[in-house]
Amino acid sequence: MARQERAVRTRETLIRSAAEIFDREGFTVASLTTISTQAGVSNGALHFHFASKAALADAVEEAALLRLRILTDRPSADGPGRLQHLVDATHGLARGLREDVVLRAGFDLSGEPARPPRTDLRAHWRGWVAALLEKACQERELAPGVAPEGAVTAVVAATVGFEVLGNRDASWLAAGTVEAFWRLMLPMLAAEQLLPRLEAEGTALLNGPIGLLNPS
Amino acid sequence: MARQERAVRTRETLIRSAAEIFDREGFTVASLTTISTQAGVSNGALHFHFASKAALADAVEEAALLRLRILTDRPSADGPGRLQHLVDATHGLARGLREDVVLRAGFDLSGEPARPPRTDLRAHWRGWVAALLEKACQERELAPGVAPEGAVTAVVAATVGFEVLGNRDASWLAAGTVEAFWRLMLPMLAAEQLLPRLEAEGTALLNGPIGLLNPS
Repeated sequence: MARQERAVRTRETLIRSAAEIFDREGFTVASLTTISTQAGVSNGALHFHFASKAALADAVEEAALLRLRILTDRPSADGPGRLQHLVDATHGLARGLREDVVLRAGFDLSGEPARPPRTDLRAHWRGWVAALLEKACQERELAPGVAPEGAVTAVVAATVGFEVLGNRDASWLAAGTVEAFWRLMLPMLAAEQLLPRLEAEGTALLNGPIGLLNPS
Repeated sequence: MARQERAVRTRETLIRSAAEIFDREGFTVASLTTISTQAGVSNGALHFHFASKAALADAVEEAALLRLRILTDRPSADGPGRLQHLVDATHGLARGLREDVVLRAGFDLSGEPARPPRTDLRAHWRGWVAALLEKACQERELAPGVAPEGAVTAVVAATVGFEVLGNRDASWLAAGTVEAFWRLMLPMLAAEQLLPRLEAEGTALLNGPIGLLNPS
């Protein structure tokens, strides 16, 4: 293996190990020694890649943002347009938070009081949901009278709630929980002619291999 | 002042000081010395009341639960019944989280990875919302076809989302945000004959003095 390739792998191993330790112990408690030991990497190698725990946290957030972008930038399925894309993205996010420790740790770092987030994943998610619902409103995919701002508030607050509550009780991130949420919301949000074609349980796109969430 | 009364006051001062430091620095970073200094109390006095930081956190959670119960156990307004009670309680919760550091710190401790919560405020809130919506369903105050479980999921996840997002951006806890949420949700949740009488902005009960939130 070329030296550069090895360095890239070591960096990725350290990011994953940091995400696992942040997820288990919290950012403040996590020690660089625990992270390097779990990664099977010397302290010297860790410091070669990351000058501090804050730098490692930045790298975890960046890696998590890449994963989130795979969910949000995925091309829409043909058919019922933006709202289905939003439903699919929330299912993908819940599944990602269940199965991918880097995504989970990245989101948690957005709420870490001891450290201002550099890449604020919750803010990124909010921006994406807001842009999508604004566009859906312009294209008359929302029911008449639905204010996009109210819908953004409800969807972003609920998904952040799923994320936070899911840390203690994984049932908040179960597909059935997200589906129940959309079964309640879609009849109110969606334009009448779209509603019969929308699938609260998400579309087949979601059933791809979880590898989709792991760009490496 | 009698000795016992002084001891009670010192205990309350310490709980408030701990809530402020937990809120600002996070539970893990907070030191007992910072807490006792801010309270204007000696380290010895702190240790007389609380054997450890975990014991202080337990006391903050208990004090926060008392405050939450004042919001949830408040008698319902005459009129549109349980759903209005729920709307009012979420407004009261948002206001309490904005203005009352003990309530805010108590909720945050529910999500603290370094410490299993003893009094889990988020779980208590979930239980209360679930019981209320179940009862509203039995009394036909919900729209036909609305599953109480779906409504519980949406309301609890969104309110926990407001709480968490409000830590970084207080606009998530503004009365207007909670009102926008209910303007979206009520037309879907409420039985048709109730809807015109429900107030998404909360009822007058809320306009009492904030002292209601401070049982001491």
